[in-house]
Amino acid sequence: MKNTIITISRQYGSAGRAIGHQVAEKLGLECYDSQIITKIAEESGFDAEYVRQNSETTSESGFFASLTGMDLYTFSNRDTIWVLQTKIITELAEKGPCVIVGRCADYILKDKYDLLKVFIYADDKDRIQRITEEYHEAEPGKNAEKHLIANDKRRATYYDIYTDQKFGDYHYYDMCLSSSTLGIDTCAHMITEAYAKKTAE
Amino acid sequence: MKNTIITISRQYGSAGRAIGHQVAEKLGLECYDSQIITKIAEESGFDAEYVRQNSETTSESGFFASLTGMDLYTFSNRDTIWVLQTKIITELAEKGPCVIVGRCADYILKDKYDLLKVFIYADDKDRIQRITEEYHEAEPGKNAEKHLIANDKRRATYYDIYTDQKFGDYHYYDMCLSSSTLGIDTCAHMITEAYAKKTAE
Repeated sequence: MKNTIITISRQYGSAGRAIGHQVAEKLGLECYDSQIITKIAEESGFDAEYVRQNSETTSESGFFASLTGMDLYTFSNRDTIWVLQTKIITELAEKGPCVIVGRCADYILKDKYDLLKVFIYADDKDRIQRITEEYHEAEPGKNAEKHLIANDKRRATYYDIYTDQKFGDYHYYDMCLSSSTLGIDTCAHMITEAYAKKTAE
Repeated sequence: MKNTIITISRQYGSAGRAIGHQVAEKLGLECYDSQIITKIAEESGFDAEYVRQNSETTSESGFFASLTGMDLYTFSNRDTIWVLQTKIITELAEKGPCVIVGRCADYILKDKYDLLKVFIYADDKDRIQRITEEYHEAEPGKNAEKHLIANDKRRATYYDIYTDQKFGDYHYYDMCLSSSTLGIDTCAHMITEAYAKKTAE
């Protein structure tokens, strides 16, 4: 079996994390997700929540700074986090086959490892339901919609700043699956099948 | 089983047609592809090759006309073909579950039928190999690359003119699969699995 790593990029609220964990369990692999945040926090001294907000999305202030170009010429905390994120994800990949959820792992590892690059997305309705009822990160109604739109923008902006890829553009993935249509179990099943096919070559 | 129709949009040279036919065979459904061209030709009186060039991509002249806005205010032959294409695809869908390859069927049927919307894409290298060695639509080398780029542009422009969708944007599909990574058989297998899941609900 080849040393192939599964990277799961995902829209906010699309259940990408749950799918990643299910894939890892089926394949008997490690799934790295929040551990990456913990490791960055440990090595940087930043608070874990601060790392979470700045390791995949721009923070509120970072978002506006990126629009105005304010932080183009300074090495920001977010840049420090990016450097550590790159180092930690590369170290995790070196250990062998695994599943890595988010954190631009697809971009960070693309020239170094054989990857199965997955993108998970979902309908806004399902995402709103998930972020309100499951993640408890927004109140139902207008608040949740605003939260979703803002998060989508910040994640896309982060990709613009740190990679030369466009978030969600099929060119950068091997498969893009809607968890709304397919459900978590079928998505996980399809990814394990694709992994079996790719590693059997 | 619900009356669900599978639409397969695909990048030029990505083997979407072969995948569509394999899916239809597995599910015991009709696969509509070149029959649509034949029917439009019969009903319009246009030559079948002329219909093929104007039923999914803009022709060379149509492409430049669309850029300059030349044909914005006239009812062109391509518009006639679009009207017939819409009518014929809707008639085919009315017959029951089937697979329809290309021809903007996903857009034409989106508010009328339950759809499984698939997008197939592939690496340029594989697409060039396919259009030169299998389709024999271009000579290897520079010619094939130019042919591919021109065809991609014309297909995207056609979508811009006749739909409010962006060709290849994941928002408009239930699954997007790379035939380069997954291969024709695995793509077909995954689509049939997704169809089983969707129609079982």
